[in-house]
Amino acid sequence: MSGIFISFEGPDGAGKTTALKKLMPLLQEKTNKEIVLSREPGGSSISEKIRKIILDIHDEEMDPRTEALLYAASRRQHLIDVILPTLEAGKIMLSDRFVDSSIAYQGGGREIGTEAVSKINDFAIDGHLPDLTIYFDISPEVGLSRIRKDHEGQMDRLEKEKLDFHKRVHASYLEIVKNNPERIVTIDADQVPEKVVADALEAILKRFPEIFNEGE
Amino acid sequence: MSGIFISFEGPDGAGKTTALKKLMPLLQEKTNKEIVLSREPGGSSISEKIRKIILDIHDEEMDPRTEALLYAASRRQHLIDVILPTLEAGKIMLSDRFVDSSIAYQGGGREIGTEAVSKINDFAIDGHLPDLTIYFDISPEVGLSRIRKDHEGQMDRLEKEKLDFHKRVHASYLEIVKNNPERIVTIDADQVPEKVVADALEAILKRFPEIFNEGE
Repeated sequence: MSGIFISFEGPDGAGKTTALKKLMPLLQEKTNKEIVLSREPGGSSISEKIRKIILDIHDEEMDPRTEALLYAASRRQHLIDVILPTLEAGKIMLSDRFVDSSIAYQGGGREIGTEAVSKINDFAIDGHLPDLTIYFDISPEVGLSRIRKDHEGQMDRLEKEKLDFHKRVHASYLEIVKNNPERIVTIDADQVPEKVVADALEAILKRFPEIFNEGE
Repeated sequence: MSGIFISFEGPDGAGKTTALKKLMPLLQEKTNKEIVLSREPGGSSISEKIRKIILDIHDEEMDPRTEALLYAASRRQHLIDVILPTLEAGKIMLSDRFVDSSIAYQGGGREIGTEAVSKINDFAIDGHLPDLTIYFDISPEVGLSRIRKDHEGQMDRLEKEKLDFHKRVHASYLEIVKNNPERIVTIDADQVPEKVVADALEAILKRFPEIFNEGE
């Protein structure tokens, strides 16, 4: 596969999704390769159906292991329908969240255990890890206060969880980063948005100099 | 947990579901315990939603690993919503299919591998294996010819698969039976229905004599 697969990770409120939108045109200036931006499970109708079940606020009684399996199923189909065809076409795939989110949120946050959740995700991705993961680090307190300001009454089921949950997610992310020093680059998300975007751009250009060479 | 958990397994066309309906009143004559019969994922609204996605005939492009993860998710929620509460209440739980179906159908039939599918199902059931599994054995040829006669044009996506698929499913079932001699009892499903039901009844009475003692 000749494409490049980059995932973007971080706790809620890290500003990842907003940064990605700004990052994309800046990246595009630097390369002739086509860039595809996708949020899990975007672009796959089966994955969207699964996501509807997961995020249905009425399904309050959903078991954490059911949720983890559904995320893994949705991820698998997104990989097959969107990510792999993009990479096979030699394009650059930017994914807003991927496997590390499940390990941090379900494994750590919901306390199923990071190792157990890693196993079902290994089954789902079958070796297709990102070439690079940009981790947007933010403290749970700052992240949570940002969510509250942005969404007001519109928080979904996951976002409604309390600060303790967010602290466990953050701790799990730090563990994942520690265990994957070659794949993951951490950037400080508690800076002005322009600086966050600039740091993410720099990390990508540094990792793949052959692709981003003065617009070629 | 004071209940008894019995699962019923077998290839399509083994006559399992029909036999179960006849078996239930016969069992009930032998015990004062309440008997609950459930087909996966019956009785759980989240599981039913998941099943709808799996069996949607329009989702022809569903990846086999996505399917396996969805079955595991549905099974998990069915376990939490139906099976465990039934067992905790001291009742007898009869489940039409359980974990062995995924190992045989997705692991063997769809060739993902029985070990890989076992792993994600271990995550889903978290140790809650049936106390007894009755396996209805039927050759792939006989099983398939029975389905064709019964359903005519009404076969769902799984049943539409070809004979080779059914042969792999059957072979996987035989492997599961071989590896679980203490949990699984095989009965010959290529007999008249009354004899199949009688054999299943006998297997249960023999395994749990303390429960089925002359109507007590």
